[in-house]
Amino acid sequence: MSDHIRIVLVNTTHPGNIGGVARAMKNMGLSDLCLVSPKLFPHPDAEARSSGATDLLASARVVDSLDEAIADCELVFGTSARERHIPWPLVDPRELAAIAAPLKGKSRVAILFGREDRGLTNEELQRCHHHVHIPAVESFSSLNIAAAVQVITYELRMAEVAAEAGSKPQWGTDWDIELAEHRELELLFEHLERTLIGIDFLDPDNPRQLMPRLRRLLQRAVPDKVEVNVLRGILKAVERKVELQASKGGNDV
Amino acid sequence: MSDHIRIVLVNTTHPGNIGGVARAMKNMGLSDLCLVSPKLFPHPDAEARSSGATDLLASARVVDSLDEAIADCELVFGTSARERHIPWPLVDPRELAAIAAPLKGKSRVAILFGREDRGLTNEELQRCHHHVHIPAVESFSSLNIAAAVQVITYELRMAEVAAEAGSKPQWGTDWDIELAEHRELELLFEHLERTLIGIDFLDPDNPRQLMPRLRRLLQRAVPDKVEVNVLRGILKAVERKVELQASKGGNDV
Repeated sequence: MSDHIRIVLVNTTHPGNIGGVARAMKNMGLSDLCLVSPKLFPHPDAEARSSGATDLLASARVVDSLDEAIADCELVFGTSARERHIPWPLVDPRELAAIAAPLKGKSRVAILFGREDRGLTNEELQRCHHHVHIPAVESFSSLNIAAAVQVITYELRMAEVAAEAGSKPQWGTDWDIELAEHRELELLFEHLERTLIGIDFLDPDNPRQLMPRLRRLLQRAVPDKVEVNVLRGILKAVERKVELQASKGGNDV
Repeated sequence: MSDHIRIVLVNTTHPGNIGGVARAMKNMGLSDLCLVSPKLFPHPDAEARSSGATDLLASARVVDSLDEAIADCELVFGTSARERHIPWPLVDPRELAAIAAPLKGKSRVAILFGREDRGLTNEELQRCHHHVHIPAVESFSSLNIAAAVQVITYELRMAEVAAEAGSKPQWGTDWDIELAEHRELELLFEHLERTLIGIDFLDPDNPRQLMPRLRRLLQRAVPDKVEVNVLRGILKAVERKVELQASKGGNDV
């Protein structure tokens, strides 16, 4: 939980967006929401778009001025889509997270989001230590405010998860089966080769690149033990079927 | 511009979300949007939430089935919030971007987003090479669909911006053969299923998890066109052999 991070929305026009912001925050484990003079709040559209993050809406603090919203914060970031007259320290959301996530338990951090149509004013931006810019394409650079909050809180969450993580499992998820050992794979490839010869698909006198291609394909997938057993089961079923049919034929020759 | 990335929305209920997705895509330089049986589209709510990305809505393709939406794609990611019965290769949005962004100009990539209330079905998720999970907090893990698209397209954009230094090809090396398209893989899986039934390995009345396991294994390897042809050649050889033996037997009964 990034409980040292405060999201501050300045003069938000559409209450639906406040709901979207609350949902995005709760998805990523944030809960400190502060609204500077919202146009309409509380409002049913905020409830609807929050999709269950009503606790964040209920605990949101509504204040009259930006200074009040950030009075107790040690570090303030302001979101900005445009170039400003005076250059200001500028970070992207990943850099913001790299700075802000480790401050948990030490400092309170505010991230400011401006009006839907014009963002933050120059005066508001000058209250910030850093500006943060989401690298959208230049010709269409204005994100929905809830989408912008989602991107930035996602980066905070990624930083938090990375800080907790030890080693990450193969394929990014816990697997239910152990991976096959080399010798099991070798037995599979031997079995596969015998079967392919048995069904006249592989000519041992002219094997070309068939087995290397099949090795490369299956090894790329890094099979687990059950998968290897399934494949060997298929090979056995092929052999059994071919032999059975042959013996039916063979008996009568 | 990530013009090799297709965003596929499956059975979206709220047209406003389609508009939000279009805006998020356009912010990050994507334009290929495909809608599988949306409930309401076109719709004024989609226009309103798109906030100027109406060109994406106008050019969005509407189709009846997921297979149609991804037929020409070589790599398919499915967004998933829940744990599934069989574990599937799982990436986070940053890992998705690391895989997908360098495929520009080489492969077409689809990213699937499911219904607002229940996501993608198991059957739909089994059509994917990888699942992608946005690491939300477990107790409140369901993102708004436009917010989810924003996070993933943001990561693609970050990768694109970062990779202007030079791109790394799939598997870390240039490949000699083009990757197989989704429809080629589906034909392979149909053929495999028929053959497994034919050799009495798969019981159609009790298929259990056999086909999902084989799908998962082969899709993990992301087969190229020659590999798919080799596998289908093996299946044909099995069928031919089994029939040949059967007819030998059959002649004499």
